[in-house]
Amino acid sequence: MRIGILGTGTVGQTFGTRLRNLDHDVTLGARETGNPRAVEWAEAHAAQCGTFADAVAGADLVINATAGQYAVNALEMAGGNAALAGKVVLDVSNPLDFGSGELRLTVCNTDSVGEQLQRAFPDARVVKSLNTVNGSVMVEPSLVPPPHTIFIAGEDPSAKEVVIGLLGQFGWAKGSVLDLGGIKESRGMEMYMPLWVSIMRALDGNLAFNINVVQG
Amino acid sequence: MRIGILGTGTVGQTFGTRLRNLDHDVTLGARETGNPRAVEWAEAHAAQCGTFADAVAGADLVINATAGQYAVNALEMAGGNAALAGKVVLDVSNPLDFGSGELRLTVCNTDSVGEQLQRAFPDARVVKSLNTVNGSVMVEPSLVPPPHTIFIAGEDPSAKEVVIGLLGQFGWAKGSVLDLGGIKESRGMEMYMPLWVSIMRALDGNLAFNINVVQG
Repeated sequence: MRIGILGTGTVGQTFGTRLRNLDHDVTLGARETGNPRAVEWAEAHAAQCGTFADAVAGADLVINATAGQYAVNALEMAGGNAALAGKVVLDVSNPLDFGSGELRLTVCNTDSVGEQLQRAFPDARVVKSLNTVNGSVMVEPSLVPPPHTIFIAGEDPSAKEVVIGLLGQFGWAKGSVLDLGGIKESRGMEMYMPLWVSIMRALDGNLAFNINVVQG
Repeated sequence: MRIGILGTGTVGQTFGTRLRNLDHDVTLGARETGNPRAVEWAEAHAAQCGTFADAVAGADLVINATAGQYAVNALEMAGGNAALAGKVVLDVSNPLDFGSGELRLTVCNTDSVGEQLQRAFPDARVVKSLNTVNGSVMVEPSLVPPPHTIFIAGEDPSAKEVVIGLLGQFGWAKGSVLDLGGIKESRGMEMYMPLWVSIMRALDGNLAFNINVVQG
């Protein structure tokens, strides 16, 4: 697949590297062209880089790996609804703000980044997934002993199928994917973040963990 | 132990019945004396009932099983800081509001019920636990196949030990209890509720589920 990644941070690069290892065509998109991190990464991985718009332009699938609070703005810069129309947008972001010294979500309870994106770009096929684990686990679930659960939410069933296919390539078994329903379920997935941080601290900073849903 | 339960709803009665079966001395506390649900339950289970203040007065351990948004008020009615001083207060509540037709938390992100209680009643030994599972699972974890995780948070280590002892009587193995730290960690535990509701719906309404924390 031709995949455009928005965001050149750790998560964006982690996706890029894993997707190149799976032989996908990858363009890493930054706010400005010539971003040194993006250029360096692209050279090292035989991939492309450019602006957010460059990353979206030729892509079959767009991955939003920007910080959640800037996601709508990044996708606007990428060309907005016209550029995104019909494309699958996998949103793995969280609206984390540690500015006060402790975690605050910049949106929660009555809205979420996933919903904001689908509202702002109604013709994009937004799918929320992977935001409930660390970037390393997102693309390499075997870092955590099975079984454990990954959530997915979105309005478009065929877009979710595309994402589930990609998750499978990363190593997420079909049985580990729990479909929560429409994009509104992003709310719970993002509001899990404070508990995620608490658990991570209780595990002495180990990032390689996840939760497994067990039912009786 | 002499245990006072605040709240005569399903959760309060579920705790009361389980604690009576474990041979604890139980007083079920209601907003007003003579509450018919409380009287009927107490007669059926050889237990006491009365006001919130009656439930707290003789108790070694107080369980807050009121709705989270009314918890501070209920503990005020029970006698406030003076009546609660030195007592272990196990808060199992969540600030759920379905009034708009969808779930909203009445407090989140920058505060939580657990923190509100500890702030309002500084001499109480508040411990947050069990709020991340359905009432039936709280007192009977074997309803869900092991292993799965229960969280605990609070400022007072010895109060947490008392609660962990009670959890053990319910069937929560020591290895299933994950101590998240101080009472501020209530925030993540309560903000998990929207995801809990989403999971419950994805499991076709099954309430007998929980999450297991797995680390690599």
